Amino acid sequence: MGYSFYPTDLEEMRLTSPRYTLAVHGGAGTMARGATDEAPYHAGLRAALAAGETILAQGGSALDAVVAAVTALEDEPLFNAGRGSVYTSTAEHEMDAAVMDGSTLAAGAVATVRTPRNPVQLARAVMDSRFVLLSGDGAEAFAREHGLEAMPPAYFHTAHRLEQLQRLQAQEGGQRMQMDHAPTAPLDETRKFGTVGAVALDSTGHLASAVSTGGMTNKHPGRIGDSPLVGAGIYANDQSCAVCATGSGEYFIRACVGHDIHARMAYAGATLSEASQAALAQVGQLGGEGGVVAVDRQGNIALPFISAGMYRGWVRAGEAAQTRIFED
Amino acid sequence: MGYSFYPTDLEEMRLTSPRYTLAVHGGAGTMARGATDEAPYHAGLRAALAAGETILAQGGSALDAVVAAVTALEDEPLFNAGRGSVYTSTAEHEMDAAVMDGSTLAAGAVATVRTPRNPVQLARAVMDSRFVLLSGDGAEAFAREHGLEAMPPAYFHTAHRLEQLQRLQAQEGGQRMQMDHAPTAPLDETRKFGTVGAVALDSTGHLASAVSTGGMTNKHPGRIGDSPLVGAGIYANDQSCAVCATGSGEYFIRACVGHDIHARMAYAGATLSEASQAALAQVGQLGGEGGVVAVDRQGNIALPFISAGMYRGWVRAGEAAQTRIFED
Repeated sequence: MGYSFYPTDLEEMRLTSPRYTLAVHGGAGTMARGATDEAPYHAGLRAALAAGETILAQGGSALDAVVAAVTALEDEPLFNAGRGSVYTSTAEHEMDAAVMDGSTLAAGAVATVRTPRNPVQLARAVMDSRFVLLSGDGAEAFAREHGLEAMPPAYFHTAHRLEQLQRLQAQEGGQRMQMDHAPTAPLDETRKFGTVGAVALDSTGHLASAVSTGGMTNKHPGRIGDSPLVGAGIYANDQSCAVCATGSGEYFIRACVGHDIHARMAYAGATLSEASQAALAQVGQLGGEGGVVAVDRQGNIALPFISAGMYRGWVRAGEAAQTRIFED
Repeated sequence: MGYSFYPTDLEEMRLTSPRYTLAVHGGAGTMARGATDEAPYHAGLRAALAAGETILAQGGSALDAVVAAVTALEDEPLFNAGRGSVYTSTAEHEMDAAVMDGSTLAAGAVATVRTPRNPVQLARAVMDSRFVLLSGDGAEAFAREHGLEAMPPAYFHTAHRLEQLQRLQAQEGGQRMQMDHAPTAPLDETRKFGTVGAVALDSTGHLASAVSTGGMTNKHPGRIGDSPLVGAGIYANDQSCAVCATGSGEYFIRACVGHDIHARMAYAGATLSEASQAALAQVGQLGGEGGVVAVDRQGNIALPFISAGMYRGWVRAGEAAQTRIFED
């Protein structure tokens, strides 16, 4: 089983006096660099960091910051979440999202929703109910009951995502595979794991995570990936870390990536970097690809991925925001 | 936070030459013993053990055995899974199920399905696809594509489950609460966590788990509990253990009970019994109730619960099958 790590030099950084830390991602994938204009992707990541940092800099909570950052990523059509989500095999949108509060282990999540403008905000509303995970029509009804903004299918439509589905379905059996076409993004759209996510440590020492996704192109209707599943695509616990994952979701579910990173830190004494790499290694051993964005209670950041690149960014109190796509 | 353990004397038993082990449960809950006739519940558990043991005794796989045992529990209306499932707040049935193979970490699961006669068999079919978790109408379509038997709503109906919903909804706000009514089962139906599940170790040393449930009475449509979530209500890994959980699902999700038991064994060197009790203690600290049924690679069994009782049974090669409801 061949796979490799492409850690960045920021994978683990220590702060002498941590105040707040925020990291975001816009998905991982495979593609040679320089294929298309990368600037809009960097701008989208910076906008998300700015939305979250505004809250953290004012002493706001990690939970509010990650929801704000993911909302910005959902509103940006370049990323596969909210507006700009990919299409299912029946040419519809089915979106998943989740939030988790490391200070209480409270979590809220939604799966296969079609109309909420910002699925992450619906997940946040579910967190305040007696449920953790709501799906489909029931989740839509919950959204209406709670007054969340709904949008028509046209809002979520993007021409290149629909073309992407049509190209994929033109191939044998509609299976996902490497395509022979001109790239429209720095990372290959057909091999891009288009989750978005954010993790944060706030100035009071609390951790939180949020994720959102349109899932995988040409997925079976009703398919739920790792993103809305606590312990798989998302996890947060003030005792250890906040994690959000992006990748071939089924492998991340089987490897329980989010909780595994926590468990390696809590039970085996691993550092954030060691735990993240070990959990991703298991994904690789199963045959999956992707990456994670994680922050620990000391403000260390880990951004490892086992794919050619991952749209990612981070910012800390008193430092300039940084964004990257490939290893560097 | 008050909670207590009620372990059985079988919580951890060592075998000198393990050949196979099977354990099942029909839900946990609260109620004084002796309220009603317990015999049919014992008979239902024995039938499930017999269905699974037939396969194990012939050298069959743990995976086949747990699917057979859970199928039997689904077919028995006394238990809240398949036929006899509880009602949602809109007086419908929405069922969840999952299977996991400890030898490959392969998993299959379905959520909020309404027609499959045996949701666990649909989960088993999903395990053979490129997906792990399918929900709602998409899962129903997958079931039709794969020729699984569908039943009309009348098949899943039971009069006492509908009465249970009506009584519950007659209370303030339709919230789940302690009811003042004559019990119809040894465990209070309004406080019974009606998952069913099975775990097995086969003669080749492989572990597997299966779970199925109608969820919680009066649940919001679209609600997904811990049962179909890998690492929460179900987990299996040949390196450590096979687990299935039953209880107040939202707490089991937040505590990642299934994967937590594995992680405590794999990373902290805990025994099956220690790991199961520690994971359940976290559920209790969060405010939840319930239990787990687990078996490890040596054939040890743990059946701890933090509630007044749990319908449970177990059998091992060369030993007579045993069933219990309360602690004893």
